[in-house]
Amino acid sequence: MDWFEGSIMARRGVAAGEARARHTITEAQQGPYRYVYGPFVEPVLRIAPGDVVEVETLDAFGGAVKTEADLPSKVLKMPFVNPQNGPIAVEGAEPGDTLAVRILSIDPRGPQPAGTTALLPEFGGLVATAQTAMLNAPLPEAVKKMEVTREGGVKFSDRVTLPYEPFIGTLGVSPAMEAVSSLQPDYWGGNMDMPDVAPGAVVYFPVLHADAYLYLGDCHGTQGDGELCGVAVEMNSTTVIQVDLIKGWSIPGVRLENERFIMSIGSARPMEDAARMAYRDLIRWMVDDYGYDETEAYFLCTQAGRVRVGNMVDPKYSLGASMLKTYLA
Amino acid sequence: MDWFEGSIMARRGVAAGEARARHTITEAQQGPYRYVYGPFVEPVLRIAPGDVVEVETLDAFGGAVKTEADLPSKVLKMPFVNPQNGPIAVEGAEPGDTLAVRILSIDPRGPQPAGTTALLPEFGGLVATAQTAMLNAPLPEAVKKMEVTREGGVKFSDRVTLPYEPFIGTLGVSPAMEAVSSLQPDYWGGNMDMPDVAPGAVVYFPVLHADAYLYLGDCHGTQGDGELCGVAVEMNSTTVIQVDLIKGWSIPGVRLENERFIMSIGSARPMEDAARMAYRDLIRWMVDDYGYDETEAYFLCTQAGRVRVGNMVDPKYSLGASMLKTYLA
Amino acid sequence: MDWFEGSIMARRGVAAGEARARHTITEAQQGPYRYVYGPFVEPVLRIAPGDVVEVETLDAFGGAVKTEADLPSKVLKMPFVNPQNGPIAVEGAEPGDTLAVRILSIDPRGPQPAGTTALLPEFGGLVATAQTAMLNAPLPEAVKKMEVTREGGVKFSDRVTLPYEPFIGTLGVSPAMEAVSSLQPDYWGGNMDMPDVAPGAVVYFPVLHADAYLYLGDCHGTQGDGELCGVAVEMNSTTVIQVDLIKGWSIPGVRLENERFIMSIGSARPMEDAARMAYRDLIRWMVDDYGYDETEAYFLCTQAGRVRVGNMVDPKYSLGASMLKTYLA
Amino acid sequence: MDWFEGSIMARRGVAAGEARARHTITEAQQGPYRYVYGPFVEPVLRIAPGDVVEVETLDAFGGAVKTEADLPSKVLKMPFVNPQNGPIAVEGAEPGDTLAVRILSIDPRGPQPAGTTALLPEFGGLVATAQTAMLNAPLPEAVKKMEVTREGGVKFSDRVTLPYEPFIGTLGVSPAMEAVSSLQPDYWGGNMDMPDVAPGAVVYFPVLHADAYLYLGDCHGTQGDGELCGVAVEMNSTTVIQVDLIKGWSIPGVRLENERFIMSIGSARPMEDAARMAYRDLIRWMVDDYGYDETEAYFLCTQAGRVRVGNMVDPKYSLGASMLKTYLA
Repeated sequence: MDWFEGSIMARRGVAAGEARARHTITEAQQGPYRYVYGPFVEPVLRIAPGDVVEVETLDAFGGAVKTEADLPSKVLKMPFVNPQNGPIAVEGAEPGDTLAVRILSIDPRGPQPAGTTALLPEFGGLVATAQTAMLNAPLPEAVKKMEVTREGGVKFSDRVTLPYEPFIGTLGVSPAMEAVSSLQPDYWGGNMDMPDVAPGAVVYFPVLHADAYLYLGDCHGTQGDGELCGVAVEMNSTTVIQVDLIKGWSIPGVRLENERFIMSIGSARPMEDAARMAYRDLIRWMVDDYGYDETEAYFLCTQAGRVRVGNMVDPKYSLGASMLKTYLA
Repeated sequence: MDWFEGSIMARRGVAAGEARARHTITEAQQGPYRYVYGPFVEPVLRIAPGDVVEVETLDAFGGAVKTEADLPSKVLKMPFVNPQNGPIAVEGAEPGDTLAVRILSIDPRGPQPAGTTALLPEFGGLVATAQTAMLNAPLPEAVKKMEVTREGGVKFSDRVTLPYEPFIGTLGVSPAMEAVSSLQPDYWGGNMDMPDVAPGAVVYFPVLHADAYLYLGDCHGTQGDGELCGVAVEMNSTTVIQVDLIKGWSIPGVRLENERFIMSIGSARPMEDAARMAYRDLIRWMVDDYGYDETEAYFLCTQAGRVRVGNMVDPKYSLGASMLKTYLA
Repeated sequence: MDWFEGSIMARRGVAAGEARARHTITEAQQGPYRYVYGPFVEPVLRIAPGDVVEVETLDAFGGAVKTEADLPSKVLKMPFVNPQNGPIAVEGAEPGDTLAVRILSIDPRGPQPAGTTALLPEFGGLVATAQTAMLNAPLPEAVKKMEVTREGGVKFSDRVTLPYEPFIGTLGVSPAMEAVSSLQPDYWGGNMDMPDVAPGAVVYFPVLHADAYLYLGDCHGTQGDGELCGVAVEMNSTTVIQVDLIKGWSIPGVRLENERFIMSIGSARPMEDAARMAYRDLIRWMVDDYGYDETEAYFLCTQAGRVRVGNMVDPKYSLGASMLKTYLA
Repeated sequence: MDWFEGSIMARRGVAAGEARARHTITEAQQGPYRYVYGPFVEPVLRIAPGDVVEVETLDAFGGAVKTEADLPSKVLKMPFVNPQNGPIAVEGAEPGDTLAVRILSIDPRGPQPAGTTALLPEFGGLVATAQTAMLNAPLPEAVKKMEVTREGGVKFSDRVTLPYEPFIGTLGVSPAMEAVSSLQPDYWGGNMDMPDVAPGAVVYFPVLHADAYLYLGDCHGTQGDGELCGVAVEMNSTTVIQVDLIKGWSIPGVRLENERFIMSIGSARPMEDAARMAYRDLIRWMVDDYGYDETEAYFLCTQAGRVRVGNMVDPKYSLGASMLKTYLA
């Protein structure tokens, strides 16, 4: 039996994990890409629980950085970065429910070199920024293009080829009444840049607005922990997801499961607050659904919890705390 | 000569500091109060630079906490807190300009005791919250009502009467393309809870959206540094402001001046980032407008800068860094 | 009546606030200055409660920066900075007691210009440091010398003269079993750089080691909030203090009182933790000694507490939270 | 060829990776255990580069928590926790050199159940502490004892058995002139609680004082990322290490290598500063020793760096940033 059959999505979803109608959102179907997560635009697509959607995502630069000579400060028009597909309305989703998004596949799309990373002024984990404001001069801008293929991996340099480990950098639902930049991660998802949001995983989001309004974009060919300079292996992609709805399961933030573990994701600053959010929610999940009492869950996280640093560069930092399923059986 | 005649607003404003047409926004004229700062609603009023507006603001609880028995968790409907008046469209305001808001007066409004403070679950500077997530049990909820008058001050208790030192807790303009909760302060203003945003001050905001879309609310009868428990002396108010527009002055965040000093306000987490933002902008302002070079400004801030902690409880903390005008002459 | 007669030091001190024997610690008497706060050296002086000590302190550079050409990286030998007088053994002091230090006077000492500030590589509140580690290039080093006199103030520049507002930058007692750099502030005092540690104030420290082992140094002619570039108006000084001992008063960290207010000082990173420490201790102090219950103290701090940012540059940041004595009567 | 033959220790150590004389430090030989890392005590043992030392370490409670009824607040005498073996003087070590410590084996020692975890008042990652000071009531104290064996793993509960993955929680050298609590991690090592400090790894420390003065203790049977409640699977151990000295290699903080990766460890608060320290040092190491230029190293860390959260509970948080050796070839 595939692990997915035992997943929360398969066990509790309205569609019981079955894949139903298939849709596409091509670039043409999308029309204008979106730069905020919010409820103030019309859905680009309406789907039912169980439906599968194949999406043509743009990279975080909207494809504007075509060569290493295209400096971001020249070709980008702020704040129009990190374009998103969506919103996708999910029938029947109401506040208090949970949306389940199973990631089926992610493929690079478009001409090679498909991958882009860059140093942008006043952005990144090891430079002064608008928030960690300093008087030091910024680093010089730089762009690096990389060939990215499913088979050949990421050709980082003559010296280094990295495995192709794609994931969705920005994925989530509309806040209840806000419309927030797609650069920001928060309890509704968004720009978490968490490498575990990858094919094989199911990600859970709290529904905060009627019909959920799912957004996605910003796929990466691979990424290190923390997305250190702020720009992973950005690429246009064809991404396929399967969506389901879990009625009456109310969660306070983003959760994820895959074959091996369950994970709670916290997004906050300073970084320890993101870690606290993630671990507290993981403990509460273990208490609610896996028969632990709080002290025992706290002890087990102390001895066996794992932390993944998604990003240390976005408006909020995202960390995931996880527990192996073998310890939850 | 009144200091205001030498203010940036009076010297550089479209209306040159002159008070022109007078408007009101009563509760009835406002109709629905607003819970986000954003561009997605119609203005409640359109004004020209120089116009004066008398506004009936609601307290942060929308007036729902009428007695000490009205526990917030019972009478509030989240996330509908911190209701705002506005948006007020200002003719001619364009991104790249600066909006000037002179605060003329703030008076408590409605039946006594007009002032409310409270302990809310998982909210405040000395308790575990959704972000500084912990396993400790929350404090018991509590409400304290206080008589607040211009003449008699704030009757905190039989033992203590505090001076009436009113200010606007939440004041700012619409972000460019986002719509963000009125609980949050940011570079467009919002819920800064900075006691210097008081009668006698002029506050400057970067215009980020056509017509600026000014919002305000959340007036306080007085407040300590940091707004420690998260709830100041909240009150309904009648607040009078005079608005002007400075064309072509582009500022990166909120600035303020009064008779004695100029101040830059930073909002961020952790708190040191808010302090860094505030001080860096103050230095840049001293360089741009007061003839300092960067090193000399950095040295002078080191020896004579002052820091005010507005809030240490909101989604971002707000700190102001200020310099006496006597050192800028 | 002088307020001091009602101070905790005068009311509860072993010497009841009386000034007794007078001592000196000249440069010659000090011999080697100290670079750590700890118990592993012999006292330079033994005193009894009530005794007054006149101390010749060195500036934070040990006097090595004599002209604006003396770049710190050239003339300093790390980690030998911030030299301290002491330790001064106080007879009868035992762990669990509190040491009271009343600051009587601080005068600049030595040739003019007596004051020094500087930009040091990778040190300061608005630059990348060893901890807030970044890849940006450091700012150029710089030194500024200033004339400092009691009468004439601090001649910052032709344009600006600042008032002479001296205080002790580094003051405290030995930790119980550690010996910690005099650059660091902590619950035993040390390098707090808090401008309220000034003539007229009484500062209270928890005794952690037999005989307390008092250290002091690092006097400043004036300083802004946060000591932004990391170097205030550093000067050699003649400083006079009166020491007393409060038996059986156990405090968790540094407290202070002057004519107007009581203050608790917290030292930690991130900055909000320093603020939390300061405010929590202030509340507990109000509960223990001033008849408040915890909720009422929390509410009063929210409406009337004041926060002073001592430093935002040292290994821990120091913030003070204070309450006016008029609200404690 | 064993990877160790290509390690920095084997290639550049005075003893060239050869194991030479063997020593023991039994409990009796140790005599008084140490609670600070510093230079103010006599060495318990003098060794030469290449020597192997078998050490009887105590657990963090000094063995005082023998049963689940031994509440830490009852049986511990603060600040005497986290007892350390040492200091071990290493002949020829001088400031500017690097000490290499290869971990050969760690075995639990003493009667079963050998492992202890606990909830202590105001200590841990998900509770209010002395620094993250709050008014919430503390959690109830609790102790959990666990059988720990090399073969059988850690018997966490009837439901869960964890693999035996031992490491040294506290390991490092004396600071230059300070003596700092063994509870604190810093650039000299100390209480990093980093699970990669395990058998098979070589850990490098900057020599800050003549003869290095190596300390160790606080072995754990296993631990999750962050050591969430502050207390891992604490156990008495027999730990065997091999020490070498690398002359003229000056490093700014702790580094580590094992068969798969190199790692730099940063210890600071807030947590992002620890991450910045770790990643900046990793980049500098890649530049100095592996032929990368800074931008290329920054890019590679962005795409392939890994972050391990050692502790989020100690006076400083410890994070490690690592790079696979396959990308350094």
